[in-house]
Amino acid sequence: MQQRIDAVKAQVATALDGAIAAHPAGELRDAMHYACNGGKRLRAYLVMESARLHGVDESAALPVACAVEALHAYSLVHDDLPAMDDDDLRRGQPTTHIRFNEATAILAGDALQSMAFGLLSDAAIGSPEVRVSLIAAFADAVGARGMVYGQMLDIAAESADVPLTLAEITRLQEGKTGALIEFSAKAGAILARADTAPMADYARNLGLAFQIADDILDVTGDEAETGKRVGKDDAAGKATFVSLLGLDGARAMTRELVAASDAALTRYGDRAGNLRDLARFVIERHA
Amino acid sequence: MQQRIDAVKAQVATALDGAIAAHPAGELRDAMHYACNGGKRLRAYLVMESARLHGVDESAALPVACAVEALHAYSLVHDDLPAMDDDDLRRGQPTTHIRFNEATAILAGDALQSMAFGLLSDAAIGSPEVRVSLIAAFADAVGARGMVYGQMLDIAAESADVPLTLAEITRLQEGKTGALIEFSAKAGAILARADTAPMADYARNLGLAFQIADDILDVTGDEAETGKRVGKDDAAGKATFVSLLGLDGARAMTRELVAASDAALTRYGDRAGNLRDLARFVIERHA
Repeated sequence: MQQRIDAVKAQVATALDGAIAAHPAGELRDAMHYACNGGKRLRAYLVMESARLHGVDESAALPVACAVEALHAYSLVHDDLPAMDDDDLRRGQPTTHIRFNEATAILAGDALQSMAFGLLSDAAIGSPEVRVSLIAAFADAVGARGMVYGQMLDIAAESADVPLTLAEITRLQEGKTGALIEFSAKAGAILARADTAPMADYARNLGLAFQIADDILDVTGDEAETGKRVGKDDAAGKATFVSLLGLDGARAMTRELVAASDAALTRYGDRAGNLRDLARFVIERHA
Repeated sequence: MQQRIDAVKAQVATALDGAIAAHPAGELRDAMHYACNGGKRLRAYLVMESARLHGVDESAALPVACAVEALHAYSLVHDDLPAMDDDDLRRGQPTTHIRFNEATAILAGDALQSMAFGLLSDAAIGSPEVRVSLIAAFADAVGARGMVYGQMLDIAAESADVPLTLAEITRLQEGKTGALIEFSAKAGAILARADTAPMADYARNLGLAFQIADDILDVTGDEAETGKRVGKDDAAGKATFVSLLGLDGARAMTRELVAASDAALTRYGDRAGNLRDLARFVIERHA
């Protein structure tokens, strides 16, 4: 699996660089490039594996993989802003507003969102029907029904008097990180005009497992390992899966979710080996 | 013309409210709604008139008109942020980050951009081919080649040692306000799969005339009339069309541009009367 992840990383890095380089030179383009640098490329990997599983060409899936990574990069840039999470470190580097400035970071995030939608209109992806259905699903996943909705719940939670319940924190995660992960996993099925339900099921379990593992790492990890500040949630008195379930409970829930994500892939048999490995990788590394 | 503008305003207000209401209730949705309130709806009017001129149904054009207004609203919300132009008044009301808070304003802007792209995937607009070509043109108009690029040039100009030249300020305007105005004017031609060149020509002249009239109003207008702070450009020592051409020169250039926008509509004959009136309205009101 690691070899395949590395191959996808290299492919996406080259294609994303190319997409950004097609814009006029200057600070804005530099900031977009900076923001898209590095990262695990989990979402791109999900797109490429989902495409492979549904018999879709890599050339059709690659613009979609770039779109989800550009969108993810924009969301991190805006999330790190002083008015939001106020983070100065991301992927082991200064955040975009620290390296450039706040105005440039806001605009680079905005432009990355536009670029992501533009990438989904790429003719290489397939028929206009397929592209439009992808774009509609993407808009739902990232806007005020999906990712941005989850980010808003997260911001609201910080100023709330009462910590979130498990149901509330789950709803928050389903938006903030779950929606784009789900879109990424479904993308191959959308491209192949196949049933998206099994991949959605896989992704919902994976996304939640991933978030819980992240919360665990915020308690047990260090900055050299994670590339970002740790212990922030605890310091802010925010409810997390760890504060609600305890460390052992959170680990147990992660294992259950990974088993459920595994079960969702049954119909794909052995061909889904990489996606099963990915889910297991989440607990091995973090939990 | 005024009657037709008022009709479009009402139509777009209802449709935009409906699109926003389809999202989960809460502060984010309230802020999106607040940000979309009011305004001249110039861009929506261009979309609807361009559609009428090309024999396109209102029902197909309306989601496009809503998309350009949602996008325009997002751009104003982000433009007004403290890290950008730091404005507290817009359309006679407190700006979104004043009325809500900065984080909510950033997220509402982000969500309005997603919503705009989602609206362009609406089946009412037409065939998937038409929708995808609209989306591709829209992404170009609003991203790091279009509007956001122009905003970045504007921000950069503020910290530059030397004021912008006329060529530079024109390039800035072509991005910051011109690109979305051009998209709006071309939309009807794209929907009808007709030649977009005449409408693009009309819009480039109109957009520039509109910006120069805005610069004139920043010098000659008052806040009650404009609904926003005036004299800011001058106070900031920013080059504007007025500072470069003088008040009389700026007025003369506006008249020339309006004549050129008129000439671009020749092939449409009398049916383009509303669009001609719109361009003349710009000088009558402002210059």
